[in-house]
Amino acid sequence: MLEKKLVIGLFGFGVVGEGLYKVLQSTPSLPVSIKKIGIKNRHKKRNAPASLFTDNLQDILQDKEINVIVEAISDSAAGYYIVTTAMKNGKAVVSASKKQIAENLSELLQLHLQTGQPFLYEAAVAASIPILRNLEEYYDNDWLTAFAGIVNGSTNYILSNIFKQQLSFKEALLRAQQSGYAEADPSLDVEGHDAVHKTQLLLLHAFGTIVAKKDILFNGIQHVQPCDIQFAREKGYTIKLIAQAKKLKDHTIAGMVLPQFLTSDHILFQTADAYNGITIESSFAEQQFFYGKGAGALPTASALLSDISALQYGYKYGYKKWKHPQKTKWEARFYLKVYISFTDQSTIPAAEFEHIETWHIQPHHKYVIGTIHTQYLKKSDWWKTAGNSLILLPDAFVEDRDIKRIQLKSLAIAEN
Amino acid sequence: MLEKKLVIGLFGFGVVGEGLYKVLQSTPSLPVSIKKIGIKNRHKKRNAPASLFTDNLQDILQDKEINVIVEAISDSAAGYYIVTTAMKNGKAVVSASKKQIAENLSELLQLHLQTGQPFLYEAAVAASIPILRNLEEYYDNDWLTAFAGIVNGSTNYILSNIFKQQLSFKEALLRAQQSGYAEADPSLDVEGHDAVHKTQLLLLHAFGTIVAKKDILFNGIQHVQPCDIQFAREKGYTIKLIAQAKKLKDHTIAGMVLPQFLTSDHILFQTADAYNGITIESSFAEQQFFYGKGAGALPTASALLSDISALQYGYKYGYKKWKHPQKTKWEARFYLKVYISFTDQSTIPAAEFEHIETWHIQPHHKYVIGTIHTQYLKKSDWWKTAGNSLILLPDAFVEDRDIKRIQLKSLAIAEN
Repeated sequence: MLEKKLVIGLFGFGVVGEGLYKVLQSTPSLPVSIKKIGIKNRHKKRNAPASLFTDNLQDILQDKEINVIVEAISDSAAGYYIVTTAMKNGKAVVSASKKQIAENLSELLQLHLQTGQPFLYEAAVAASIPILRNLEEYYDNDWLTAFAGIVNGSTNYILSNIFKQQLSFKEALLRAQQSGYAEADPSLDVEGHDAVHKTQLLLLHAFGTIVAKKDILFNGIQHVQPCDIQFAREKGYTIKLIAQAKKLKDHTIAGMVLPQFLTSDHILFQTADAYNGITIESSFAEQQFFYGKGAGALPTASALLSDISALQYGYKYGYKKWKHPQKTKWEARFYLKVYISFTDQSTIPAAEFEHIETWHIQPHHKYVIGTIHTQYLKKSDWWKTAGNSLILLPDAFVEDRDIKRIQLKSLAIAEN
Repeated sequence: MLEKKLVIGLFGFGVVGEGLYKVLQSTPSLPVSIKKIGIKNRHKKRNAPASLFTDNLQDILQDKEINVIVEAISDSAAGYYIVTTAMKNGKAVVSASKKQIAENLSELLQLHLQTGQPFLYEAAVAASIPILRNLEEYYDNDWLTAFAGIVNGSTNYILSNIFKQQLSFKEALLRAQQSGYAEADPSLDVEGHDAVHKTQLLLLHAFGTIVAKKDILFNGIQHVQPCDIQFAREKGYTIKLIAQAKKLKDHTIAGMVLPQFLTSDHILFQTADAYNGITIESSFAEQQFFYGKGAGALPTASALLSDISALQYGYKYGYKKWKHPQKTKWEARFYLKVYISFTDQSTIPAAEFEHIETWHIQPHHKYVIGTIHTQYLKKSDWWKTAGNSLILLPDAFVEDRDIKRIQLKSLAIAEN
């Protein structure tokens, strides 16, 4: 394998960009150098020589010596412009921007194939965990049947603190913000958007399927209530925000990003704090599990470093599953077994449940447990509104479509 | 990447060889075919067309059309001959034979470099877990500081059954043999040899160090007693056979394969039955954990399949850490914190301990807990003999060499 001298143009000098700068300074053996760093504000004090910085994108994108662009900025529109221009200008691209990539997945994939430029983004999913490369390289012939992962460090840090330190959601969020594990505006993480972006990338590399965000059922952890935590504790469960997908019996893929109760023997049970974990199921290798830091400067930079290192021998994702003539179809319609706590019973459309197992109506804890078709969850947002908290049961996928529809009214118990 | 048509000569049609045959039949999209299968006994009934089989090695090794040799036989001498002849004859090699590779590591590595032929052996360590490829490709610049793993499925299956099913070692071994998780002659697994062979491969890919088996301190689980299990239960520990290595403060590498007590928050605590798990620590990525099936026909074949698939684009291990001018030195001399149960107190050389914390002398359970230098464990086998069971404490590495040597005699309590 020919080792190529890599000259990097880095965009962004936030946590991830600066992390990469530090990591490259600590690995002098790698024939890689950063020539320029593109930032918005040239007057901000930075921990690197001022001569490296520019606020003019074109200084980097038009520089013929620069053969690798590393994109680590939060502005998606600017990120898309940088990444696409770089590929068109014959530069390899390494990116950490899950939102930008997930939003433009088809276009970026097409451009990557047209230009032949490597486009790697391991750092975009579960930071330090080498999940995309493994899905591409290692499970390229051994097709997957399922994955389930904790892919958002902020929400996992918050949930871990709620369980371990007995904090309320608000207190745990504040602590996460103080510790640098949640943004000032935490909605991207807390409401599940970030986990969906990562799920979109996982779906492409695990199953070869491009799925739009609007087609993925999701919610975050913003409505998890103390009574839900109490319920979990009593049952020996924990609650995690799980990104998951599964091949159904008819070979379509079903998946979602929702909070879920996990039993203590679940492989993701112990994935706590800022760690991420992803378990996959395949036909031959059976269950596999990958675990590591899902956030932080150096863990994220380590994934960028591995992608950069792989560019030395011209590595590109093969997208074998995506290119496969037998396309895997995304199935947005399936049954889920859910727990939904509520403050106002009239907000729960009982008739939309396929089957209701339990109504629990006590002054401080009201919930319903039942099986519901995703079409009802897709068509309206009642289960996502304040006061209503939907959490998947441990065995959430109900594959048997022949569920007996039962008389719901007879089961509803009056509030006491 | 150029995709090459691969024509395979397979040696061995046991669990692994037949597993690969089945797996390749299930992946018709891969441009790979098995042309010949070398076996010892031509008259045994096999689940594949008779025309594929030959008992003449040279039919395969001299066949110019065959460009890949897959070696999956248990006879190490024959395996070595096959692998070396194949490389000399210009064929790529994929092997699952940890013992053979570990025993001949330097020679095989030299021959691989001389001939330029790919030589891959992912299946040799932790079967389905892609650990070697990840150590090579993903942690090639991010240098490791430690690894610890459960790499032998048989002993893990036995220990899990002892703990979960309350079986004795003998009963658990019998069950493992009946379930196909232990050989008729289980000594290679049970006495720790197999885990040492895998550790030798891990040491090369994790730290770039070739270490002879004789330089690795090891034992298996054959002397673990019911009183040790009881002790573990009372403390909330489990016992696992752990293969581990760690970069010490002076940058040398220390390691061993020994049974160890693990606390319930240890990442390997839940790696049970025939599963394997390996956790690694690195400077940038921090802790990472890989988990999957460590034995079985299809999980092992899945690793062979991934290696074969990687041959299509000419993949070879880079051995970057081994080639690095700054060699990592193996350190066989360090302190360990151990628990040793015994039946006869006179077999315990108390004066060889650097520090003794506890003497426990009860009719049904006698043990000592203390810190001992590995030089004393290396120089004689008293701790490996029947009746004496050495188990590492959860924090086994004692890095501080300034341990106060205390009066041992005053602590020894008479048997009551």
